[in-house]
Amino acid sequence: MLTNLRVVLVSPRNPLNVGAAARAMSNFGCLDMRLVNAYRVAVDEARSAVKAGAVLEKASEFATLAEAVADCSLVVGTTSIGNRELQHSLRRLETGGLAIRKHLATAPVAILFGSEKFGLSNDDMTYCDWLMRIPTRDEHGSMNLGQAVAVTLYELIRSPRAVRAEPRAKKAATVEQLERFNQLLLEAMRESGYIQDKTADSTERKTRRLVKRLDMPATDSEVWQGMLRQILWKLKH
Amino acid sequence: MLTNLRVVLVSPRNPLNVGAAARAMSNFGCLDMRLVNAYRVAVDEARSAVKAGAVLEKASEFATLAEAVADCSLVVGTTSIGNRELQHSLRRLETGGLAIRKHLATAPVAILFGSEKFGLSNDDMTYCDWLMRIPTRDEHGSMNLGQAVAVTLYELIRSPRAVRAEPRAKKAATVEQLERFNQLLLEAMRESGYIQDKTADSTERKTRRLVKRLDMPATDSEVWQGMLRQILWKLKH
Repeated sequence: MLTNLRVVLVSPRNPLNVGAAARAMSNFGCLDMRLVNAYRVAVDEARSAVKAGAVLEKASEFATLAEAVADCSLVVGTTSIGNRELQHSLRRLETGGLAIRKHLATAPVAILFGSEKFGLSNDDMTYCDWLMRIPTRDEHGSMNLGQAVAVTLYELIRSPRAVRAEPRAKKAATVEQLERFNQLLLEAMRESGYIQDKTADSTERKTRRLVKRLDMPATDSEVWQGMLRQILWKLKH
Repeated sequence: MLTNLRVVLVSPRNPLNVGAAARAMSNFGCLDMRLVNAYRVAVDEARSAVKAGAVLEKASEFATLAEAVADCSLVVGTTSIGNRELQHSLRRLETGGLAIRKHLATAPVAILFGSEKFGLSNDDMTYCDWLMRIPTRDEHGSMNLGQAVAVTLYELIRSPRAVRAEPRAKKAATVEQLERFNQLLLEAMRESGYIQDKTADSTERKTRRLVKRLDMPATDSEVWQGMLRQILWKLKH
């Protein structure tokens, strides 16, 4: 699904972050990583790390950003800065992601992540159609690179209508099953002395509502009845 | 907004991951971290790391999972396993997140993350109301702990209707501005010999449509006119 997407790391310096970004890409099925002006040692270290996997192995390297995004028709820069006066329009990930998804259906898109320390430079930004930020809180806006890549890709693959592996709706117990349970419970309460004779009627109604609110699954109702029967047996002997 | 949320790390072993989880929590404004059966050295190392910040500093530690989630009325386990036969119902993050958001509005919720190597144990899962998985691809399902926490929290704070810091709609050039540009462009094309007399009419229509499709911002139209005026001056002298 993300075959048209290129994740471009501009001037990455930390091998752990490069590796983490590659792992997030692999998790979400985005396999085209591009490295611009990457610190040589960082790339080599990241590649030699365990679990770097196919994404990092096949990552292409470029000297300039222009070369790295040459085949893309939409270029989006990421930034952690929410309030700075920017030349570019700035979208939150939720809305930016929607625009990117639409574009990806027909044409290649590049998303740029700047260096851990400085982000994207003003020059990098001139290649961007617009900028995007993950809605982190103002007090702590700057995200770890690998986490920023993970969250961004998740927004692109998330599906509001996803129902794969949805829980089988649990089958609720029938009125008849609940009533059998009710009767056993009331009997146990009488046997144990919990119910006073004069309040018995209202207690029965209260108990029925109490049991109703349990939302007991059909498959469990027999077990509960069995437990109560055993308690009753013990109470009576 | 996430004040009712507790992120519970069960048996974490890697200090980098504990620190990364804390940073993601801080980014998204979830400040209540709980550690169960944590590897002592990992917690100490994570706490001493730079940028661990307030979340990790204030993280509470528990010997058992039961104690860690005692005050919660919804407990959700995370798993990377999509296909295994599970006793519990399993929801994708998109749908599970919706249920969690609703619950958070009125009561505390715990989300459990298992150890990096083994995930949550069957015993841990008996404390869960249901399980949730991030929709990673089948070929590479298992996520880095910090990234899993980041993606999960993002799903909880994301707002489809978010418009904070949305781009100011760029003001499009008016018909009059475009027409002035058009006339200058046509004049330049005549002066340069691009327009042949017999096709001039259709060329004018084509050019107008061409310019229309540029979607030129109002603020840029004067600049473009200035460029053309200079070219025309040069062409005529």
